[in-house]
Amino acid sequence: MNSEQNIKDMMLDMGKAAQAAAHSLAQATTEQKNNALTTAARILRNEQDKILSANGKDMEMARSRGITGAMLDRLLLDGPRVESIAASLTAIAKLPDPVGDVMAKWDRPNGLTISRVRVPLGVIGIIYESRPNVTADAGALCLKSGNAAILRGGSESALSSRAIHDCLVRGLTGAGLSADCIQLVPTQDRAAVGELLGLAGYVDIIVPRGGKSLIARVQNDSKIPVMAHLDGICHVYVDAAADLEKAVAITLNAKMRRTGICGAAETLLIDRAALTSHLPAIMDALKAAGCELRGDERVRQLDPDVIAAKAEDWDTEYLDAILAIKTVDGVDGAIAHIAAHGSRHTDCIITENDQAAEKFLTEVDSAIVMHNTSTQFADGGEFGMGAEIGISTGKIHARGPVGLEQLTSYKYQVRSHGQTRS
Amino acid sequence: MNSEQNIKDMMLDMGKAAQAAAHSLAQATTEQKNNALTTAARILRNEQDKILSANGKDMEMARSRGITGAMLDRLLLDGPRVESIAASLTAIAKLPDPVGDVMAKWDRPNGLTISRVRVPLGVIGIIYESRPNVTADAGALCLKSGNAAILRGGSESALSSRAIHDCLVRGLTGAGLSADCIQLVPTQDRAAVGELLGLAGYVDIIVPRGGKSLIARVQNDSKIPVMAHLDGICHVYVDAAADLEKAVAITLNAKMRRTGICGAAETLLIDRAALTSHLPAIMDALKAAGCELRGDERVRQLDPDVIAAKAEDWDTEYLDAILAIKTVDGVDGAIAHIAAHGSRHTDCIITENDQAAEKFLTEVDSAIVMHNTSTQFADGGEFGMGAEIGISTGKIHARGPVGLEQLTSYKYQVRSHGQTRS
Repeated sequence: MNSEQNIKDMMLDMGKAAQAAAHSLAQATTEQKNNALTTAARILRNEQDKILSANGKDMEMARSRGITGAMLDRLLLDGPRVESIAASLTAIAKLPDPVGDVMAKWDRPNGLTISRVRVPLGVIGIIYESRPNVTADAGALCLKSGNAAILRGGSESALSSRAIHDCLVRGLTGAGLSADCIQLVPTQDRAAVGELLGLAGYVDIIVPRGGKSLIARVQNDSKIPVMAHLDGICHVYVDAAADLEKAVAITLNAKMRRTGICGAAETLLIDRAALTSHLPAIMDALKAAGCELRGDERVRQLDPDVIAAKAEDWDTEYLDAILAIKTVDGVDGAIAHIAAHGSRHTDCIITENDQAAEKFLTEVDSAIVMHNTSTQFADGGEFGMGAEIGISTGKIHARGPVGLEQLTSYKYQVRSHGQTRS
Repeated sequence: MNSEQNIKDMMLDMGKAAQAAAHSLAQATTEQKNNALTTAARILRNEQDKILSANGKDMEMARSRGITGAMLDRLLLDGPRVESIAASLTAIAKLPDPVGDVMAKWDRPNGLTISRVRVPLGVIGIIYESRPNVTADAGALCLKSGNAAILRGGSESALSSRAIHDCLVRGLTGAGLSADCIQLVPTQDRAAVGELLGLAGYVDIIVPRGGKSLIARVQNDSKIPVMAHLDGICHVYVDAAADLEKAVAITLNAKMRRTGICGAAETLLIDRAALTSHLPAIMDALKAAGCELRGDERVRQLDPDVIAAKAEDWDTEYLDAILAIKTVDGVDGAIAHIAAHGSRHTDCIITENDQAAEKFLTEVDSAIVMHNTSTQFADGGEFGMGAEIGISTGKIHARGPVGLEQLTSYKYQVRSHGQTRS
């Protein structure tokens, strides 16, 4: 038996174990699940030294591989970060349990009473990169929503993830739940990802978390439905009827509050009729905050310091302090540009004209459409979902922030007093 | 350019045309969509002779290929059947339009007002077999839910489907909608199905309608999410605490009302403690109705006329007047048997013991679980959805009957008065 076959067998075994665990987890009480989470949080705090030591080895290995900057920072754990992972487990324990929730109930003239009741999806495969906290966050969200999880973390954070996973498992068994409710793929062999994506019949949905190349690979190779977003090319459209103060504040916040998140604005669409009235003040604020501006000809006529945008700028998620600025003809021009270049994530119109706003909110085909609101609010926590496993730009199953409810399905419970169909 | 390349190009063009049509259809008014449907119904009635003549040619061709019995009957159109197709278009026009429905709306402490609003999925690919009425039903359900449809009917009904499709297109253009809202694949080349299943990025979901081999092929080959059910191995479990009269009436109805539908019962699970008290009367009723019985040893001890069931009987969807009967140990035995042999479609418990009933309804992991109710009610119409495009046994997106609402997604519309994130 070669190693490829070993990995295939191992992943199939993990799939079967996850399915069996999911079957009993679906019947677990809220208390049991919460106990597992709060116990894991306590163990995580107690084991901080062990986790930091494992993380130290990951960091050393990463440095020796030449990893630096933001990627190294994503990998780093310290006391406050471990505390924040533990706190997030406790926070998820406090969220309402979606399982068993009666979403709707109605009586039919045929004598049937029909209830639509939330149930877990089953088994969720999570494929992620260097952030070790995803191990705890994703595992906890799956657990609370009654789903078994198969976690596949990046090689950079292998030891940190294993140390965190150990705490989760001790939480599970402490609460009388199967350790297989949250499994961590023990090998860094890339073949394991391919096998996981082929476990249709055992794994119900795949959630990739990470960079564009990971998401693209997963979307392309998976035989299982994928919930994810490939890009977050978010647009802010400043209409001629925009309030200048709001336009400046929102654009600045949407771009610069945090440039590395998927809800950060990447392109400013400026109404041709707002070029001279609005754009100079917006650009001044952005430049003062250290943002590089790339614009079309009309924009550069206003300010020759602006770099000439190339065609690819309209399709680029910078995740950095860079903003592309494009002149469009009113709300219709903005809608057309977003249809051609957007990533169906989050797009915003700034205007005091309610008709233009409604048109934008209706016609822009994105998961989140906003009026006079910073795109940086594109987040499950800000939406009141408590926590999210990611944001989906697909339309199948869940769209936008994916929280506990979005990790569930439903069943119909039908009751009558002996009804037969005529 | 070879013919394979031609088909590839043609399907890609259809995908692009559907996507463009979906974009404007998403903004169409309810009135426009209803006009298209009622106009199509009127034209269908007017063109009855043309449709019947096209169907006559299909029938002739089918007979010459040796097609007989139920399959030939599924293909047949006559006056009443054309009238029923037209009536179903009108009925779909009368259903509430799901698009634009505000599913939820809430205010957040951060100053945001968030609305979850129903939107169409986009483009739906329907792959079906011999029933020509699916052309109208599926096309109409997609249209009413704001989705563009690409229909791929079976070769047997090619001319009938084309004649019906012509009426739909005339309805669309009469209402000022693009003819591309409902496209019919014009070739019977099987390669077209493969190409359709590969149109990820243009087609959002695939709905196959037909026999098990079609569904299995589509589920296996599709790069696009599939909504379907492979099998309808529905179980009726008769508990020792069942009311005898209900047990007889429901089992008889669940099996024999119509044997060829997916909600028909295929296996009777009899509580060991109900063998002598309940089973004889149930079997008498079934035999009197002409049902063949296949049972395990205990069942055959009660009635030696019962055929000995083989292992495969527990996994067979007969779609015929045959019932497999298996002895189980109470509700736990029933739940375990269904977990091992069920198809996650519809399963029923007959009992007057509410605790057993709740256990069954909670623990059986099927799209529809029933208490004292015939499985033949597993139908979108009976559930009050008006009409259904099929029943899904998957847990992703929609589960159970797929009506207009299940053919939609949603978007978040976020409004505030200039909120920025701190």
